[in-house]
Amino acid sequence: MTYYERRVEYYETDKMGVVWHGNYLRWFEEARTFQMRSLGLSYKDMEDMGIMMPVISVDCKYKRGAQYGEIAIVEAKTVFFNGIKMRFEYIVRDKATGDIFVTGSSDHCFVDNDFRPMNLKKTHNKLYNDILKWIDEGN
Amino acid sequence: MTYYERRVEYYETDKMGVVWHGNYLRWFEEARTFQMRSLGLSYKDMEDMGIMMPVISVDCKYKRGAQYGEIAIVEAKTVFFNGIKMRFEYIVRDKATGDIFVTGSSDHCFVDNDFRPMNLKKTHNKLYNDILKWIDEGN
Amino acid sequence: MTYYERRVEYYETDKMGVVWHGNYLRWFEEARTFQMRSLGLSYKDMEDMGIMMPVISVDCKYKRGAQYGEIAIVEAKTVFFNGIKMRFEYIVRDKATGDIFVTGSSDHCFVDNDFRPMNLKKTHNKLYNDILKWIDEGN
Amino acid sequence: MTYYERRVEYYETDKMGVVWHGNYLRWFEEARTFQMRSLGLSYKDMEDMGIMMPVISVDCKYKRGAQYGEIAIVEAKTVFFNGIKMRFEYIVRDKATGDIFVTGSSDHCFVDNDFRPMNLKKTHNKLYNDILKWIDEGN
Repeated sequence: MTYYERRVEYYETDKMGVVWHGNYLRWFEEARTFQMRSLGLSYKDMEDMGIMMPVISVDCKYKRGAQYGEIAIVEAKTVFFNGIKMRFEYIVRDKATGDIFVTGSSDHCFVDNDFRPMNLKKTHNKLYNDILKWIDEGN
Repeated sequence: MTYYERRVEYYETDKMGVVWHGNYLRWFEEARTFQMRSLGLSYKDMEDMGIMMPVISVDCKYKRGAQYGEIAIVEAKTVFFNGIKMRFEYIVRDKATGDIFVTGSSDHCFVDNDFRPMNLKKTHNKLYNDILKWIDEGN
Repeated sequence: MTYYERRVEYYETDKMGVVWHGNYLRWFEEARTFQMRSLGLSYKDMEDMGIMMPVISVDCKYKRGAQYGEIAIVEAKTVFFNGIKMRFEYIVRDKATGDIFVTGSSDHCFVDNDFRPMNLKKTHNKLYNDILKWIDEGN
Repeated sequence: MTYYERRVEYYETDKMGVVWHGNYLRWFEEARTFQMRSLGLSYKDMEDMGIMMPVISVDCKYKRGAQYGEIAIVEAKTVFFNGIKMRFEYIVRDKATGDIFVTGSSDHCFVDNDFRPMNLKKTHNKLYNDILKWIDEGN
């Protein structure tokens, strides 16, 4: 589990006065790549190794709209990984009150530069074991 | 069911060369409000009546990334409405081939300007019946 | 001169209730590529020919914020081209009233896939002459 | 002068592989509001006082596209203020090399909640003097 702090930006709000609902997917991405960097694995490095990790599904549930001036904490957790797919879950809270703004998840697969699916267990066994170890250690 | 045509814009792509996954939520919103206008009900008019329709959950499944130069058709369908909640489903296809780019759905509730939940059946009965009729007619 | 029609989307507004100022650069891009397509030259085709046209400067002056529910007309005009650089100017108006929302311009150069500057007069002479001709004909 | 650190996010890149040019206006806004907070004046507080500070013009010059994995430093400086208008200038550099990605500026006015122009010298004299003092102290 990692905790990523994120200030609400003005340009993220809409005329309802709260963050436009689609913008939380940006926060999820920031929190997910923050987690990977915390684990010593930057997504940039993965792409340099010829591995891309596209999103294959995402969902988001909205509890309370985050407002300009508020600061959010995005909890991210890797909940599944088998070398072919990886799943992250997110809880976004108001830093001041702990109230939940949104929860969500994203599923990812691994593909090469031609968008062909990869099994990291076979193609990048060391990376596969490193990721498993991180998850064991509680990510 | 309505069919909303949408060209892929350059600024929507990311360095993978396809539309960044969160941007499809923009297309869903465009298709949903397009459908409402097709039914004679603009979301602008609803807000002028003091009704907001925030998203309470959204999900999206990705089949194939849309590329710059491609044109998408976003099918939108209202699949649930009871005056308190409303659910839309979306299928986004490549206009040229019919291939599915993404599918998804969004759930909405109705709130007043203070974000208090509303039941349109009670507060706006004519609108409630109009929406029911549109759904019956196949939207 | 081309006229590109563009509905204000909800996700483009901010908590001031008008389109967030940076979003007009998206409209400029849409209007510019619309113009190029109107001239028979898609930006997609240019990239397929190995030519990219990055923005080297942009400016925007704001007169009145566009609001959700309004429809804009984006006038685009190519005002300079010499094979090395190209300049577009934009006027964005309210379709209903003709009021100006914003005006702006963008300057572009031409580069190859390694971001090396190109002179189309030398590298793509037919394209160079075609563009000159379009401009002569009043674009 | 303040220095705001900003990681390039994946969703900010476009298919050219660099940050889409319009996204730098988001960085400008982040750096400008960061500066205001550093001075003890949050833009949130200003809005709570009934003062909005819309952008009346913006410009941006592009030197080198920022790439995913890079970290930028956005220098912001208030270069003009007279109670009616305010001007910020920005220089965005690669943290690692000091190379300039982009430079730019934004002009702002002050309006009330009905978008009527305000002169802070007359309407909010203490705030006016505070801002002048910050600028004197080198912002």
